Amino acid sequence: MQARQALADIQHLLTHVLQAPSRWQALAPFADTDGELAAQVLDEAAKFVDSAIAPLQRTGDEEGCRFDAGKVHTPPGFRDAYQAFWQAGWPSLSCAPEDGGQGLPAVLECVLFEWLAGANHGWTMAPGLLHGAYECIKHHASDELKAQYLEKVATGEWLATMCLTEAHAGSDLGLVRTRAVLQPDGSARVNGSKIFISGGEHDLTDNIVHLVLARLPDAPAGPKGLSLFLVPKVLQDGSRNAVVCERIEEKMGLHGSPTCVMRFDDATGWLVGEPNKGLNAMFVMMNAARLHVGLQGIGLLEAAWQKASAYAAERRQMRAPGAKDTSLIHDHPAIRRILHTQRAWIDGGRVLAYHTALQLDVAKHSTDAGERAAAQRWCALVTPVLKAALTDQGFHGASACLQVFGGHGYVREWGIEQIVRDARVAMIYEGTNEIQAIDLLVRKVLADGGQGLATLLTTLPGTAPSPAASARRHALVEITQTLAIAAQSDAELPYWVADDYLRAVALVLLDWAWQRIAAASNTPRWQEPANAFAQWVLPEFEMRAAIIRQRITQAFESLPRKAATA
Amino acid sequence: MQARQALADIQHLLTHVLQAPSRWQALAPFADTDGELAAQVLDEAAKFVDSAIAPLQRTGDEEGCRFDAGKVHTPPGFRDAYQAFWQAGWPSLSCAPEDGGQGLPAVLECVLFEWLAGANHGWTMAPGLLHGAYECIKHHASDELKAQYLEKVATGEWLATMCLTEAHAGSDLGLVRTRAVLQPDGSARVNGSKIFISGGEHDLTDNIVHLVLARLPDAPAGPKGLSLFLVPKVLQDGSRNAVVCERIEEKMGLHGSPTCVMRFDDATGWLVGEPNKGLNAMFVMMNAARLHVGLQGIGLLEAAWQKASAYAAERRQMRAPGAKDTSLIHDHPAIRRILHTQRAWIDGGRVLAYHTALQLDVAKHSTDAGERAAAQRWCALVTPVLKAALTDQGFHGASACLQVFGGHGYVREWGIEQIVRDARVAMIYEGTNEIQAIDLLVRKVLADGGQGLATLLTTLPGTAPSPAASARRHALVEITQTLAIAAQSDAELPYWVADDYLRAVALVLLDWAWQRIAAASNTPRWQEPANAFAQWVLPEFEMRAAIIRQRITQAFESLPRKAATA
Repeated sequence: MQARQALADIQHLLTHVLQAPSRWQALAPFADTDGELAAQVLDEAAKFVDSAIAPLQRTGDEEGCRFDAGKVHTPPGFRDAYQAFWQAGWPSLSCAPEDGGQGLPAVLECVLFEWLAGANHGWTMAPGLLHGAYECIKHHASDELKAQYLEKVATGEWLATMCLTEAHAGSDLGLVRTRAVLQPDGSARVNGSKIFISGGEHDLTDNIVHLVLARLPDAPAGPKGLSLFLVPKVLQDGSRNAVVCERIEEKMGLHGSPTCVMRFDDATGWLVGEPNKGLNAMFVMMNAARLHVGLQGIGLLEAAWQKASAYAAERRQMRAPGAKDTSLIHDHPAIRRILHTQRAWIDGGRVLAYHTALQLDVAKHSTDAGERAAAQRWCALVTPVLKAALTDQGFHGASACLQVFGGHGYVREWGIEQIVRDARVAMIYEGTNEIQAIDLLVRKVLADGGQGLATLLTTLPGTAPSPAASARRHALVEITQTLAIAAQSDAELPYWVADDYLRAVALVLLDWAWQRIAAASNTPRWQEPANAFAQWVLPEFEMRAAIIRQRITQAFESLPRKAATA
Repeated sequence: MQARQALADIQHLLTHVLQAPSRWQALAPFADTDGELAAQVLDEAAKFVDSAIAPLQRTGDEEGCRFDAGKVHTPPGFRDAYQAFWQAGWPSLSCAPEDGGQGLPAVLECVLFEWLAGANHGWTMAPGLLHGAYECIKHHASDELKAQYLEKVATGEWLATMCLTEAHAGSDLGLVRTRAVLQPDGSARVNGSKIFISGGEHDLTDNIVHLVLARLPDAPAGPKGLSLFLVPKVLQDGSRNAVVCERIEEKMGLHGSPTCVMRFDDATGWLVGEPNKGLNAMFVMMNAARLHVGLQGIGLLEAAWQKASAYAAERRQMRAPGAKDTSLIHDHPAIRRILHTQRAWIDGGRVLAYHTALQLDVAKHSTDAGERAAAQRWCALVTPVLKAALTDQGFHGASACLQVFGGHGYVREWGIEQIVRDARVAMIYEGTNEIQAIDLLVRKVLADGGQGLATLLTTLPGTAPSPAASARRHALVEITQTLAIAAQSDAELPYWVADDYLRAVALVLLDWAWQRIAAASNTPRWQEPANAFAQWVLPEFEMRAAIIRQRITQAFESLPRKAATA
């Protein structure tokens, strides 16, 4: 992917569609960050991504990571690229200045990481967890730990991991068995085994800071007995901690990122936050982390679109309808439909994701409590939607772009099949997309009887919706209310239709995003994907609504029968 | 995949749902093939697939094919398995007895190849083109060629290829540049380069029979100037022909099948069929070949389902709604929905595919001209639908099954990611799925103004449809008629909505298949996927209809504007 090719689009969306600079400048920490400064940052970011990271995409896949007696060798060029990355200050873009950061709005970091994922998803996994670890340490670690680790992690001099999953405890962290025992000197001894640890071991940085979920003695069973520990690879005296990488996984893709099995053998660590409140400490960063995964979906889809679009503009096969001679495949309606549809998702998805990134900063920094609460509501409700819908489209849309290449798409040479393989993982990690849907519908929307969602839908910023858009928003509110009632007698119901519900919300939000784009843009560049959205994407809303309504009707119909057989 | 696990299901569908034995026994060549004999054949086939082919699935992917100075080494075990396969007579299952075949109905061969693809898609590519080559030689080659090649190809002692594609000529065979010049001795000299030749070179058999599309001198440009040549790897005197494998492709999957770049350097060949009628000779086998690719989709989806289903019955994570303790993931609605939905596609898809296979034999062997014509119409209209819809579901459904494994699905260990990678190619080869949709709508349905499709829909065999099913069939006929009218003023229109149209036809046909299943089956085994089909799959029909109608309306609305600006 060439970030440069996406730069003008993104500037347009940030400046003219979202009025992003004036919105972040209303927040004290970003008052001095004007649109011009932001444009310079993005310009430099695009140059760095295109020159230092994108060229390593294919090597990263083909050479992959090598495991050798506990050591992990990343692909050629990865270490140099990472050293250049942190020395240029990119990891600390949106960290606070007092921690060694640049103090820029979160949305700029989002654009940077969207590009990085599109240019080289495997490489990007390494710094991908840094900001979350930074927030976690900043808000929960002791002053002593912060003095040692905060700036190293903020600047990215040291990389970080999240050690959550165990072989038997994937989506269900309540099953975690790793143990930790506090020592008289204030440290802890950590014992256990973790799997799927991205960047658990590597040669990119001199130290790695692991954040490890474990149980203290006598901790309650389940998720409320988990505590968080900071366990460095190298201790302060320079000695190696008892943290061992046992092997790395062979995967479908993402070969540039080592997925490690880690063993902690009486490793030395320190408690972060309060005992048994480990999950709380991690939840701090969950919305930002999920948003970033959604942005990976966009980045990978842009990468796939750029490849397919370039191929379609060069390859000639068959006559398009009405043509007299062999046509560029870009002139065939089936190909144009694929390409325009992906742009509809990329552009609309960007508006939603960047708006959400802006809301993350509002939720943190606004001086108006009502504004903070509204921004928090937006992030809580919209983040799972973006994570699931955008990673889903990242994979399926990349596969649609592969189809543009015909047989050439299936061979390595063109690089499109790598994008499809790499994109698949984002539907799984950071909470599977099915879990996002349950999080949205059960834990968030139905928890307050649908009021939060109704408020969000009736206060979407911008001009009044079209009658059809307004009808869809009302339909969604009505469905939500009926679902809430039906769920009282059929507890399984929301779990059956959660995916449909999430898709319906995603489509209403994308519709809003496209209305925002249309109001600020009138060139063919934006008109074609706007049409594609209306024609090919949006009709799914009625299907999802019909599926949910049918299932609700069934739930009501089975009521008398249940009563009769009770 | 374990074929044995699918055996009882398939027997039920063939015997009780489709009454297949009585239908093929009505045709003279199969009068003696009763249900019991067929059951024995399938029983033996399942044993062979499970014991000889399935165990090579992982090796085939991980070791893959090796290219070494013009030679291709297939993965360990592949040659022995192939030798056992042809010596047991499996390739010739449905070849005529006079050619060395077993003279069994095509549907039995279909089941065998569905299983083979599910067990080991890569290995199955080798014999996958045999039957087509057999038909092509049988119906078009000279007696002299037949004497030398027909039985060898019928029995599979020698494998065969189709050499169609060139670097610049993929979907558009009219662009083929390979040249052939006839010699005084009746042979031809063939020169040119072909790509994407599955099994172009390998160590499975002692000879390989290439069927090569090329142009004679002074042949007309385009597809009507193509002739077909038989070019063997080894000539009759035992000398090596001038056919060279230049390299094999690195691919997303299907590593067990060598995808070869082949060069013909004054190679010796012989014309098959008439000059410039090469495509006609290949079209003979097109419906059967496309049906087989559709069956690959089913086989791979069954393989993915078996893996996901077994995993879901063992893995415990989180509490299902209403449960008191950690549940099997099979008890979570999101997982059940995925698994039941794939079964809805597999079972319904099997009914359609097997019915089509039976129709292939009716079209060939019935003594009733009207019956032959109706069967031909069915095959012409339904085959592209099955090819596209079933391979699409093979890939997307396998990906849904991968999701059941969470993070474990993305690593090699469980074998599910291989199925997803392997399944992707079937959406491309044998005519991309977009080309299937255009073939269906433009070349077949609209060519007679929709009459053939209307006849097919109003004569679907079995009990009367439900009112809703009847309404959908009528809606499809009505949409077809309106499309035919609108296409007269907007020639691009059908090309924009061909995919939607194909999906709408697929759903109406699957609905019919499920009605057939329901009429003959009343156990929960069939009830759950029947419900899943109605609840989660079928609602797509209305969406597709709405998309097409919206596009038709646009076409009509733009008419006065076009007239005004003309």
